[in-house]
Amino acid sequence: MESKTYAVIGTGAIGGYYGARLHHGGFDVHFLLNSDYQQVRQQGLKVDSHFGDFSIAADRINAYNVTNEMPKADVVLVALKTTQNDLLEALIRPLLKSDTLVLLLQNGIGAEQALSNQLELEYTAGGLCFICSNKVGPGHIHHIDYGRLTLGVYGESGISALTSVADDFKHCGVEVDIEHSILDARWKKLLWNVPFNGLSAVLDADTAQIMACRETVALAKAIMLEVGLVAKATGSSIDPSLIETMLNNTAKMKPYLTSMLLDRRNGREMELQYMYSNVLDIARQQGVEMPKTEALYQQLCFLNRQITK
Amino acid sequence: MESKTYAVIGTGAIGGYYGARLHHGGFDVHFLLNSDYQQVRQQGLKVDSHFGDFSIAADRINAYNVTNEMPKADVVLVALKTTQNDLLEALIRPLLKSDTLVLLLQNGIGAEQALSNQLELEYTAGGLCFICSNKVGPGHIHHIDYGRLTLGVYGESGISALTSVADDFKHCGVEVDIEHSILDARWKKLLWNVPFNGLSAVLDADTAQIMACRETVALAKAIMLEVGLVAKATGSSIDPSLIETMLNNTAKMKPYLTSMLLDRRNGREMELQYMYSNVLDIARQQGVEMPKTEALYQQLCFLNRQITK
Repeated sequence: MESKTYAVIGTGAIGGYYGARLHHGGFDVHFLLNSDYQQVRQQGLKVDSHFGDFSIAADRINAYNVTNEMPKADVVLVALKTTQNDLLEALIRPLLKSDTLVLLLQNGIGAEQALSNQLELEYTAGGLCFICSNKVGPGHIHHIDYGRLTLGVYGESGISALTSVADDFKHCGVEVDIEHSILDARWKKLLWNVPFNGLSAVLDADTAQIMACRETVALAKAIMLEVGLVAKATGSSIDPSLIETMLNNTAKMKPYLTSMLLDRRNGREMELQYMYSNVLDIARQQGVEMPKTEALYQQLCFLNRQITK
Repeated sequence: MESKTYAVIGTGAIGGYYGARLHHGGFDVHFLLNSDYQQVRQQGLKVDSHFGDFSIAADRINAYNVTNEMPKADVVLVALKTTQNDLLEALIRPLLKSDTLVLLLQNGIGAEQALSNQLELEYTAGGLCFICSNKVGPGHIHHIDYGRLTLGVYGESGISALTSVADDFKHCGVEVDIEHSILDARWKKLLWNVPFNGLSAVLDADTAQIMACRETVALAKAIMLEVGLVAKATGSSIDPSLIETMLNNTAKMKPYLTSMLLDRRNGREMELQYMYSNVLDIARQQGVEMPKTEALYQQLCFLNRQITK
């Protein structure tokens, strides 16, 4: 099989890490940058990784600041924050061939559906990143730990294309699972993200602080139960024991600052649409009540308005 | 009728103001103090009031730091924060005669009942203070505006004793209403206090900020509806139009920092038991669900643990 051309949309902590891994493994990778464009053109991309540092030199990196100038891609990796998803249609269209696979490495639910409709794609794919990675400076990524990808297709076909992408990642040393349905995988991740991202942001607290207070543990669990009910109503099955397992694992984790808490602290817009608003919309469509999730969302909306005004 | 002896338990923004008013009007008032005792003994009590400043000189004030040394009282005004209510039984017992009226100037619900049981009182009374008043220094109170008291008895009798107290307050220039039931009055005040005290504390926001965001207005309204359902289930009737009226009035108010927000900002324990925990207990007894109120309470518990640890 011929080597694929990859486009990375959003070269930050996630897109920068996985894109650089693919480049490091010998693949043809093209990076879209925004604020870091000049710096990366001049100095390349640097990854301080838990698994060994590496970098892409300035004269080796394919860096762009508009997608019009990028080559058509076999695979488009989308790693923007979902707060920028209204830009995706215009960004991705110039990269599409008849069989391009668009793979969304984002949190929340509903983005594959929206993009499939906008771009009239037969299928898309989604990925969940179980990784600790931060951008610590322009073109400088600190990969702290982990890195497993859980991938799945959205649509009736596309599994063979996705399997080939998974093989590329494995070739580059990235652990990959393929789930039968990306939606199942997304609901499982939402089961944790909806309570812990929101509560940590509202209470300005890490996971250990939340787990040390019986009332917030009870609240997190109640929100998880609400998310589980909506998932079940949509046909995604979540093993009821998963909630206790997740809570136990969270209690054992080192204190963790969620991405939403970091966004709040750094004055960046929080990702409410795909993680909350879409979930609440689905709940309404399914006739499922989720009052505690809604209360949390309403508080987060307040905080987001303070940030974005 | 002979002039009554008043004891004031808790000489802060509320107890100091109303007690000083009674003293200023010629009544025999005895003040219990704690941290400000020495200062008030030496310099008296000073009230900078919206209605005209006044003070009680050091050689005129009856100031105590233990209730054992105070005379028996016809009326005990309790103006401690409810977070100190576990001290009340011991503080009040030395002041009691056979017909002493205990009047609780506190927020929340359940305190009259608890105290009546502990002290085996035939009746107690409660009061709601519609006042802007702060303690700005030891023995120094700043009365910013308003001051109306809404009083009511808890128990089958006591209305004539309470009416006589109301007359004393009116004689001293304090506006007073007597409600048929203190519980009705307390539920009406909870209708506002439960959403706005809690949300302002969790979001670190004043009332104007909360009212400027449609999601938090919706959340406040949903919590008000939950409180209204519980009140109704206990037999207290709240006119459904009161919620809209209160929201409209809150939107028109100058930005207001709730007492709970001020407590949080100043690292003082927040009054959760009488304003939240008791309300949720009553809801459970009545079989009424109040998930959004419970979620808010659980968050407040987290914040209170940060404060009190």
